[in-house]
Amino acid sequence: MTDSAPPLNFYFDFSSPYGYLMAEKIDAVAARYGREVRWHPILLGVVFQATGGRPPADGVSSKGKYVLMDFHRSARFLGIPYNPPSRFPLPTQNAARAYYWLAEQNAGLAKRFALAVFRALFVDDQDISSPATVLDIAARLGVDDQKLAAALQSPEIKAQLKEECEQAIAIGVFGSPHVIIDGEAFFGADRLPQIEHWLKNGGF
Amino acid sequence: MTDSAPPLNFYFDFSSPYGYLMAEKIDAVAARYGREVRWHPILLGVVFQATGGRPPADGVSSKGKYVLMDFHRSARFLGIPYNPPSRFPLPTQNAARAYYWLAEQNAGLAKRFALAVFRALFVDDQDISSPATVLDIAARLGVDDQKLAAALQSPEIKAQLKEECEQAIAIGVFGSPHVIIDGEAFFGADRLPQIEHWLKNGGF
Repeated sequence: MTDSAPPLNFYFDFSSPYGYLMAEKIDAVAARYGREVRWHPILLGVVFQATGGRPPADGVSSKGKYVLMDFHRSARFLGIPYNPPSRFPLPTQNAARAYYWLAEQNAGLAKRFALAVFRALFVDDQDISSPATVLDIAARLGVDDQKLAAALQSPEIKAQLKEECEQAIAIGVFGSPHVIIDGEAFFGADRLPQIEHWLKNGGF
Repeated sequence: MTDSAPPLNFYFDFSSPYGYLMAEKIDAVAARYGREVRWHPILLGVVFQATGGRPPADGVSSKGKYVLMDFHRSARFLGIPYNPPSRFPLPTQNAARAYYWLAEQNAGLAKRFALAVFRALFVDDQDISSPATVLDIAARLGVDDQKLAAALQSPEIKAQLKEECEQAIAIGVFGSPHVIIDGEAFFGADRLPQIEHWLKNGGF
């Protein structure tokens, strides 16, 4: 790790399959080049409202059907387990708020929690929109679930998530995942080879 | 080349930057695994009308601005020259009709013509929507431009392009580029690594 290299910033929504694929890969890729990654769960609904975007997978159109297939095939390509969730998409503000509360105390724990949320949704088909599921996932990592339950209702944590969404929109995030490296934006799990090339060469 | 392996089918619009990137790569990738590629220029306007799709680059929204940047960066990543064209997007039916007329006579010549059209647009900033430019590009490859000029107006060639667009929509094409391998669809120039992996392993 060099002291001078600033962290990468990784923006995602917990209901985003491509966000999940990126979450399983980005820290290891960055670490190969001495870089850390700061994670920022956001709410795609808020982002789409501001940017006029649409979810990629409606399941009905040609594109919608392709994207559902591509989630699965891209996971296989990257060697990541993937089971199409029965609830999709679904609200993720409870998981995102829990992440920010944990991150204030322990960044490593917050990331382990975030990965556990992604796997609960995309491997074990759990309803991660439910506060009970979020508390259960955190409790398995040793988190005090009563304190976390209170934090999910705290105005400070709600305001922090709102601020993260606004900040993401302000810097041009329009979907999930976005990885920002030294001001350069990379959108999509399929940009992993370009991200690695960029980190290796300091640009291209 | 094995006798049994059917050709890949490559669908693109001549005004699509990612289609251009794929055109510069796909034949060489396929050839490494003994496969040929059949090229199918189509009209994205017709496809979007049928599928409810939108062009990726409006140049105004966050996503639109990102995509314009990504065309350029993805070209650099793949080692392909790219100059953002001053006319974009632009109609491509003349280039597509010329392609199908040439392909009836000489598939190799038709591909050389198609690559020359892409480079005229994305390297030399020429107006490939104009019949004069299309005739000039073909003439440089030794094509009789008077015969081609007549072909561009022929009802048979117009009908063939219409049919190719309808066929593309029928098999689920919703953008450019699409590569279909043994019934498996790959959308986007960024799917090249998956295409190569698929060809190498016969699926994954």
